[in-house]
Amino acid sequence: MKARVLTGITTTGTPHLGNYVGAIRPAIAASREPDVQSFFFLADYHALIKCDEPDRIERSRLEIAATWLACGLDVQRVAFYRQSDIPETPELTWLLTCVTAKGQMNRAHAYKAATDANEAAGEDIDAGVTMGLYSYPILMAADILLFNAHRVPVGRDQVQHIEMARDIAQRFNHLFGQGRDLFVLPQAEVGEAVELLPGLDGRKMSKSYDNAIPLFEGGARALREAVARIITDSRLPGEPKEPEGTPLIAIWDAFADTAQRTAFRAELRAGLGWGEAKQRLVELIEAEIGPKRERYEQLMAHPEQIEAALEAGARRARQVATPFMAELRRAVGLRPMLASATPRPVAAAAPAKAAMPLFKQYRESDGRFYFKLTAADGALLLQSSGLADGREAGAWVKRLKTEGVAALAGAPVELGPDAARGAVEAALAALAAAQE
Amino acid sequence: MKARVLTGITTTGTPHLGNYVGAIRPAIAASREPDVQSFFFLADYHALIKCDEPDRIERSRLEIAATWLACGLDVQRVAFYRQSDIPETPELTWLLTCVTAKGQMNRAHAYKAATDANEAAGEDIDAGVTMGLYSYPILMAADILLFNAHRVPVGRDQVQHIEMARDIAQRFNHLFGQGRDLFVLPQAEVGEAVELLPGLDGRKMSKSYDNAIPLFEGGARALREAVARIITDSRLPGEPKEPEGTPLIAIWDAFADTAQRTAFRAELRAGLGWGEAKQRLVELIEAEIGPKRERYEQLMAHPEQIEAALEAGARRARQVATPFMAELRRAVGLRPMLASATPRPVAAAAPAKAAMPLFKQYRESDGRFYFKLTAADGALLLQSSGLADGREAGAWVKRLKTEGVAALAGAPVELGPDAARGAVEAALAALAAAQE
Repeated sequence: MKARVLTGITTTGTPHLGNYVGAIRPAIAASREPDVQSFFFLADYHALIKCDEPDRIERSRLEIAATWLACGLDVQRVAFYRQSDIPETPELTWLLTCVTAKGQMNRAHAYKAATDANEAAGEDIDAGVTMGLYSYPILMAADILLFNAHRVPVGRDQVQHIEMARDIAQRFNHLFGQGRDLFVLPQAEVGEAVELLPGLDGRKMSKSYDNAIPLFEGGARALREAVARIITDSRLPGEPKEPEGTPLIAIWDAFADTAQRTAFRAELRAGLGWGEAKQRLVELIEAEIGPKRERYEQLMAHPEQIEAALEAGARRARQVATPFMAELRRAVGLRPMLASATPRPVAAAAPAKAAMPLFKQYRESDGRFYFKLTAADGALLLQSSGLADGREAGAWVKRLKTEGVAALAGAPVELGPDAARGAVEAALAALAAAQE
Repeated sequence: MKARVLTGITTTGTPHLGNYVGAIRPAIAASREPDVQSFFFLADYHALIKCDEPDRIERSRLEIAATWLACGLDVQRVAFYRQSDIPETPELTWLLTCVTAKGQMNRAHAYKAATDANEAAGEDIDAGVTMGLYSYPILMAADILLFNAHRVPVGRDQVQHIEMARDIAQRFNHLFGQGRDLFVLPQAEVGEAVELLPGLDGRKMSKSYDNAIPLFEGGARALREAVARIITDSRLPGEPKEPEGTPLIAIWDAFADTAQRTAFRAELRAGLGWGEAKQRLVELIEAEIGPKRERYEQLMAHPEQIEAALEAGARRARQVATPFMAELRRAVGLRPMLASATPRPVAAAAPAKAAMPLFKQYRESDGRFYFKLTAADGALLLQSSGLADGREAGAWVKRLKTEGVAALAGAPVELGPDAARGAVEAALAALAAAQE
C-alpha cells in the first residue's frame, strides 16, 4: 500500500511568490514521488471560522484552486478536492466530537493565545472566541483520519493539531475498534527548514509587511514593478557588488540552477548594474512563472473547468471516504436495520444457494445491455440503465461484486422500486464475502 | 404555509407505559392536526454522546423506531427519519459552529451541571466532559434550523437549547442573510403540565425507581405481572375503597373514557376487590396496547421494513434539507464555480434565446420515453433513463424546471459524461428563473 499524504490548503488570501517557492512548488514536487498517494484539499470549512465575507470566501477558493492547478498539480495523480464537497468530513467530525475530551481542546495553542490576550486585556477569557476557533482541531482530525493519512506535511504551529488527531484516533480505536485499529495514527511531517523567500526589503515575504512579490496577480507588469522595488545598496553599474545576503540573490537562487547561480554572482562581482540584474531576475522568474500565469488566466476565465476538476477530485476522494465512513458508522452502532440482525422464526429449510442475492445480465429488445441485482426472495434490488457495450455491463457487475457499496456511487443503476438501501448494502456485502 | 413542528426522539432505553402516555401518544395525536407539517427524528447522533456501546445504540434505535411506528405514527403524513441519515445536519452543525460564541456554550445547563459537580469534587472543572456534551446545543440547533421548524415541543430542561438555537439563527441571519431571514426563529413548545403517569408505587414512573409498567417488552404477561404489583391498601373485596389518589385510578384514567372513569370509581366504592380491579385495568390497557404490541412484534421480526420506512422518511426530509443547505452554502460563500461568475471576453452576439439551457423529450426505437437537458452550448447536462410512460417523462421535466435542484435527487437521470454538477445546478436555476 502506498503511503497516504494529506495536505490542507488554506483558502484565504491570494498567494505570492513566497508561497509558491515555500509551499506550492515543493508540495507539487512531493506529490510526484512514487509510492505516495496524495490528497490535497481546499480547507474551505476552516476558512469560515475567520471569515464572514462570503464573496471573499468564493473568490479566494477560486483563485487558490486555479493557482494549484496552474502550478502543475496533476489531478490524474492526486485527489484534489474541496473539503466542503466531502459530506463525510462533518459527519466524522461529530463522531470524533463525541470521543474528544474537552480538556484537550482547552490546551490548543490557538485557543490559548486568544484567552491569554483576553486575560491580558481584562476581558472574559472567552470574549470573541467562537466555537469554530475552539473546536477546529476536531475538524482537522476528521480531515486527516477520514483518509487514514500516514503523513501530514504541516508547519511547526500545526504539530500540536496532529498530536490531537492521534489522541482522538487512539481513543476511537480503543472504544470502537474491537481490537483492531480503525484509524491509522498520522505523523506530522515538518518540512526541513524551508529557506523562506525574503521579501523586497529582506524580511520574510509577507502581505502584512507589504514586501511581497505577486505570483500571478497583476501579470508580468506587476512582477517587474515589484522586482524593481527590491532594496539594494547604492553601488553604480561598473562597481563590484557583493551578492551574498541580499534579497536579490536569495530570490534568484530560488529559480536558478547551479550554473546560473554561479554565473550571476560572478557578474555582480564584476560590476553588473542593479537595474540590469533586476531585469535578468524578472526574465528568470518569468521563464518559470509566465506559462503558469497564462494557464492561470485561462482557468480563471473558465471557472466551470475548475469546478469540474474539483468535483472529479471529490468523487475520487469519496471513493475512499464513503465506504470508510460506512464502516465507522457500523462501528459506533449506526447500522442499517437488516433482516438478519434479529432472530426470526425458522423458515422451512431452503437450499443454501437459493439464499444468495443474484446478479443477472441480459440484453433487451432495444439492443442495449442491462443487468440487475435481485434479493434471495426475488425482489428487485438494483436495475441498471441500458448500456451500449455488454463488456461495460459485465465490468460493472464485477466491480459491484468485488468492491460492494464503494462501487455503487458511480454505477449506472437505480434502486428497485421497493428496495431499501440497507437491503442493497447487505446483498452486496454477502456477495463480496462469497467472493473471498 | 403549514406550521412546521419538529420533534426529536431520544434513542436510548426501552419505552415504558409512562413514556407512551406522556410523550408518544400525545405527540402522535398532535401530528394528526391539520395545518401542521411534522418532522419526527430519532436523535441517534445525540445518543453517541453518552453511549459507547454500539450494540445498545443499534438495538435501542430499532426498538424506538418500531415503537413509534407500532403506536400509529403515520409516515405518509409526517417525515419520520434518523438524524444520522441527513448528512446536511452535521454540515449545518459546522456552519453554525463558526458563528456560535463559546461563551454561550459555557452557560448551557448540562455543561454547568457537569462542571459544578467537578468543582464540588475538587476535580478539574472539565474532567470527564466530552466535546459532545459541550457542543451538543449546536447540533440541536442544526436539527431544528435545517427544517426551519416553527415549533419544537420540548421538556422544560430543553427550553434553554431552543433559546440558543434562536440566538445562533439570529446571528447567522445577521451575518449572511443580506437583509432577509434565512432561518425561522423556532419557538419552544412546553406541553401543558402533562399528567405524569405514576408508577407501581405511586411515584413518577421511571426505570430508575424500578416502578415502571413495560409498554411492549415481555408481552401481555409482563403487563399483567406489573399491574399485579401496583400498591393498594389492604381492604378486602366487599369493603368500600376510595379510588382518588391511588396509582391504580391514575393509570386507569389514562386509558379510560369518561363513562369508564365514572363507572370504575363507583364499583370500587361499592367494594370491588383490588384483584378484580387490577384484572379490569389489564384488560383496559390491553385493549389499546395489544394490537400495537402485535404490530411491534411484526416490525421487530422485519427490521428491513423499519429500515425502508426510515429511508423513505429521510428522502422526504431531504427534499427540504438538500435545497435549503444549497442555499445556506451559497449564503456563506461555498458556491459552485460558474462560468457566469467572472467577467469573460465578450463573444459574438447571439440571440438571447440560444443562451438558455434546453429540455428535450423524445422516444427511442426501444419504445421508451426519454428526456435530456442540454446547456446553451449544446453540451449534455442530464440524460434520463428510458421510461415506460411518456407522461412520467413530461412530469419529471416539469418538476425539474420548476423545483430545480430539489427534484434532482429522485429523478431518473444521470449527469452527462462531461457535465459538472455546478453547471447542472446553474442551468436548472436559470430555467426556474425563466418560469417565474
